[in-house]
Amino acid sequence: MTDGTKEYTDVPDKGLFFVALGGVGEIGMNFYLYACDGDWLAVDCGVGFAGDRLPGIDMLLPDPSFAEKIAPRLKGLVITHAHEDHIGAVATFWPGLRCPVYVSAFGAEMLETRLDEAGLLGRVPVRIFEQGDLLDLKPFEIELFSINHSIPEASSLLIKTPYGNVFHTGDWRFDEDPVVGDPVDYKALRALKKEKILALVGDSTNVFVEGDIPSESAVKTALTELFAAYKGKRLIVTCFASNVGRIESIAEAAEKNGRTVCLLGRSLWRVEGAGRAAGYFRGVPVFLTEEEAAEHDPSEILYLCTGCQGEPKAALSNISYGTGAVQPVKGDVVVFSSRVIPGNEQAIANIQNRFIAKGIEVITVKEALVHVSGHSGRKDMAKLYEFLKPKIAVPVHGEAAHLYEHAGLAADCGVEKTVIVKDGDVLCLSSEAPEIIGEVKTGVLARDRKQIIPLNAGVLKQRRRMIDEGTVVATVVLDKKGMVSGPVQFSAVGLIENTDPVLQQMDAAVKQAVDLLAAEKRSDDQIVADTVKSAVRKVVMETHGRRPMVETHLVRI
Amino acid sequence: MTDGTKEYTDVPDKGLFFVALGGVGEIGMNFYLYACDGDWLAVDCGVGFAGDRLPGIDMLLPDPSFAEKIAPRLKGLVITHAHEDHIGAVATFWPGLRCPVYVSAFGAEMLETRLDEAGLLGRVPVRIFEQGDLLDLKPFEIELFSINHSIPEASSLLIKTPYGNVFHTGDWRFDEDPVVGDPVDYKALRALKKEKILALVGDSTNVFVEGDIPSESAVKTALTELFAAYKGKRLIVTCFASNVGRIESIAEAAEKNGRTVCLLGRSLWRVEGAGRAAGYFRGVPVFLTEEEAAEHDPSEILYLCTGCQGEPKAALSNISYGTGAVQPVKGDVVVFSSRVIPGNEQAIANIQNRFIAKGIEVITVKEALVHVSGHSGRKDMAKLYEFLKPKIAVPVHGEAAHLYEHAGLAADCGVEKTVIVKDGDVLCLSSEAPEIIGEVKTGVLARDRKQIIPLNAGVLKQRRRMIDEGTVVATVVLDKKGMVSGPVQFSAVGLIENTDPVLQQMDAAVKQAVDLLAAEKRSDDQIVADTVKSAVRKVVMETHGRRPMVETHLVRI
Repeated sequence: MTDGTKEYTDVPDKGLFFVALGGVGEIGMNFYLYACDGDWLAVDCGVGFAGDRLPGIDMLLPDPSFAEKIAPRLKGLVITHAHEDHIGAVATFWPGLRCPVYVSAFGAEMLETRLDEAGLLGRVPVRIFEQGDLLDLKPFEIELFSINHSIPEASSLLIKTPYGNVFHTGDWRFDEDPVVGDPVDYKALRALKKEKILALVGDSTNVFVEGDIPSESAVKTALTELFAAYKGKRLIVTCFASNVGRIESIAEAAEKNGRTVCLLGRSLWRVEGAGRAAGYFRGVPVFLTEEEAAEHDPSEILYLCTGCQGEPKAALSNISYGTGAVQPVKGDVVVFSSRVIPGNEQAIANIQNRFIAKGIEVITVKEALVHVSGHSGRKDMAKLYEFLKPKIAVPVHGEAAHLYEHAGLAADCGVEKTVIVKDGDVLCLSSEAPEIIGEVKTGVLARDRKQIIPLNAGVLKQRRRMIDEGTVVATVVLDKKGMVSGPVQFSAVGLIENTDPVLQQMDAAVKQAVDLLAAEKRSDDQIVADTVKSAVRKVVMETHGRRPMVETHLVRI
Repeated sequence: MTDGTKEYTDVPDKGLFFVALGGVGEIGMNFYLYACDGDWLAVDCGVGFAGDRLPGIDMLLPDPSFAEKIAPRLKGLVITHAHEDHIGAVATFWPGLRCPVYVSAFGAEMLETRLDEAGLLGRVPVRIFEQGDLLDLKPFEIELFSINHSIPEASSLLIKTPYGNVFHTGDWRFDEDPVVGDPVDYKALRALKKEKILALVGDSTNVFVEGDIPSESAVKTALTELFAAYKGKRLIVTCFASNVGRIESIAEAAEKNGRTVCLLGRSLWRVEGAGRAAGYFRGVPVFLTEEEAAEHDPSEILYLCTGCQGEPKAALSNISYGTGAVQPVKGDVVVFSSRVIPGNEQAIANIQNRFIAKGIEVITVKEALVHVSGHSGRKDMAKLYEFLKPKIAVPVHGEAAHLYEHAGLAADCGVEKTVIVKDGDVLCLSSEAPEIIGEVKTGVLARDRKQIIPLNAGVLKQRRRMIDEGTVVATVVLDKKGMVSGPVQFSAVGLIENTDPVLQQMDAAVKQAVDLLAAEKRSDDQIVADTVKSAVRKVVMETHGRRPMVETHLVRI
């Protein structure tokens, strides 16, 4: 991830090229482009999560400016699946792209809310595809290949071009007995080899995971047994909201144990709506609201909550603090049917500790098979290379560590050429050997509520500095002689309490410093402001050990 | 951890009591008290690390007010070892405690810098003990029992009282071949059983760790082999600065491979100084400074850096950004001879990814035995219970999950009574059965540079709100009629750039809102301020989606 900007490179008019605008060197912000003889195809358009490093910022976006530049020749945007890191930036960037968006039925339902919020509903040409369909976006022809993942209707793309075929995996795994969708058609997959795969552009997420990843059905079985073991107790379960298969697993396991699922949290209800509209949750009883569940004995209910990553305002966090829909008591059981996304370890542990301290049992993947990953481990990655025999491997969807490990794995699988690219690198796939021929502008933007700003924006720098050193605004009134008139008014929000006697010290220091200036200097606003700044800083440094930003509002009367 | 305050409970004059002021329910801020017939003993006095949750705060402290209340009857403060979470608050709190501080020679060296910074050098009665000594602090008699840990001279305390003996483990492990200090004297330890152990107050850190934890010597061997395998390459190693044994292991492994260690980072040099003063690093060649190392070929040097937890300004982070003492290049090797402290996962991964993206190999405990823990796993914890056969187990030094697991382990080991306490609980150990009889005031304080403030301090709330919603300070000049005179001056640091045209909108909105007030309302400062606030908020909400705090500086002319 870089803050800076890079120079445009024009991509040649002839040949086949791959460019990642986001998704390489980071997990998140997937936004990929393919160029073939001057025409372009976009694959996915997602957001990233900012974590704690950017104050006041929840969400990151890849810089779309290069995509906007080639937009006139963009044949379409194909969405592999509906996770936010693949679909979450579509509504934001579409006005600059204005191309058709190809997406599955479930993905279209998930997209609808976002387009609606952005006032784009009905304006964006959303083309719903079924897996197995062939999209004709000449010079690209795209075969949509059904693959398993932790969300319904995930697709791998076989992108056929005059220069050869690229298999773009999207996020994927093999699941021989999935809860939603079908197992991957190995035979069809193996048959692709005959079409000669020039390059595989593939998910690196679980390249460090050895061994088999159990089927989602195994989770369903384990949950059924687990719920049976806790008969009579109150069960509070959390999972990723978009994991429709998991929600079905939980609901079926609950039903077999005489429990009905109550959904707690907005994103679960949103996915429930999108899922039902796209034909999921068919065999599952209607979910209960908080109010409906309250009429039942807790032993007949299973509370399914948002907040498995320790999100501070989600349903599970509220419950752990005792401010949620359910008052947790000793003897309750909390199940994390989810993994820990790196960076969220402590937030999750804090919630778990709050429950444990109340005598509540917490069950995670450490205790039972309550979660499996939606990404293949290295074993199935090797199997895919064996099936497809690509000439070139291009690892994506990973931090540097994942990409390098994935490249090594591909080489071990006999792939002739592996190329590690950075966001923005223009990779030529049509030359004798794959070659990075230049780079285009990329970068990371932050969604600052209603504004989209660069990571090096002044407000972000100031926000960091406000945290480290604080801010003081001083309003100084100067009379005709340029002497300070009346008390100096200070605001030092987040730095000095309004009742702190240091404010009197600051007042005295400012008055003394300004009044001691020569008359001609007192008539110079900049000199007065600098004098105020250094007087304030000196006091705050002594008393608070901080060197605040100081802004002076001068009023001359 | 609680923000609130609890009521004092007077601890009875008769009997034996244990109170944790910090260290239970969290890892960090260890501060324990024992009372015997009205006299008091303190064990450890440490800080905690705030992580990312408190903006502008690096360090947490346990609320010392109860300790200050009983200070007149405090016989002494015994430090088990010199880690910051056990010793880091001594200099801050001593003026309120004013008791002798008992500490080992190495601990005294580490303490000296802090006392010096606090202007307390020479004022604090520091009593240096040797392990095996008996401290007579009647009614307490304390036997200092040498134990292994990841810092020199760690002690367990056998606290003898008229009501029975308490074994306070401190942080501990068994190491049959340590690099500094001696193996634990099992025979002596087993002999303690004869003295009847009433209670064991014990470290819970690694209660989830199964299996044996290898000796520090095994790390030395592994490092020696590892460095041999990377002959000729530049080696950059990081470890915890206070781990004198590890530094010796690294230095010896380097020497065997024809390399001299160059120390990078202030805390490593500080520990080197304290270590040499206390008699460590005897067989180790003099460490090189950055300037000295620059005169050698990189293949003859081993760079040992601070920053193994991804600390943003430490030596390793600087190197990873290319702004450090060494310019990292493809082919270099970086070794993390350390563990990942929960909460630091992403910060560490970011540094590792920066190296990997440059073609630099990163080696961690996943690849080689380059680190072992200083805390015993459950196997050795069980062994200790077997050795000592305490009647009561009191798990400390852990989050809730650790404490509950530790209590279960102790019960499995045949310990009759296990008690889980919270910070502040007054645990009576002299009654028939251990019993929590009340609680004393506890809490968490934050070190805000030169100030010590409660976690619920206004400035911290404001700082959080500044990040979430922003602040605007508006200086409004009103003429004799109460009409706005001249432009309104705004400061919206970290929220709105100075060049943002929204400032004009805010100016117009404020003028309109104030000027439209009835004349008598315009003469009321509070009404004017409220009017300014709501006008500013409305504009910022529309343009920036934030609801800022607004402070108004009114100037009437």
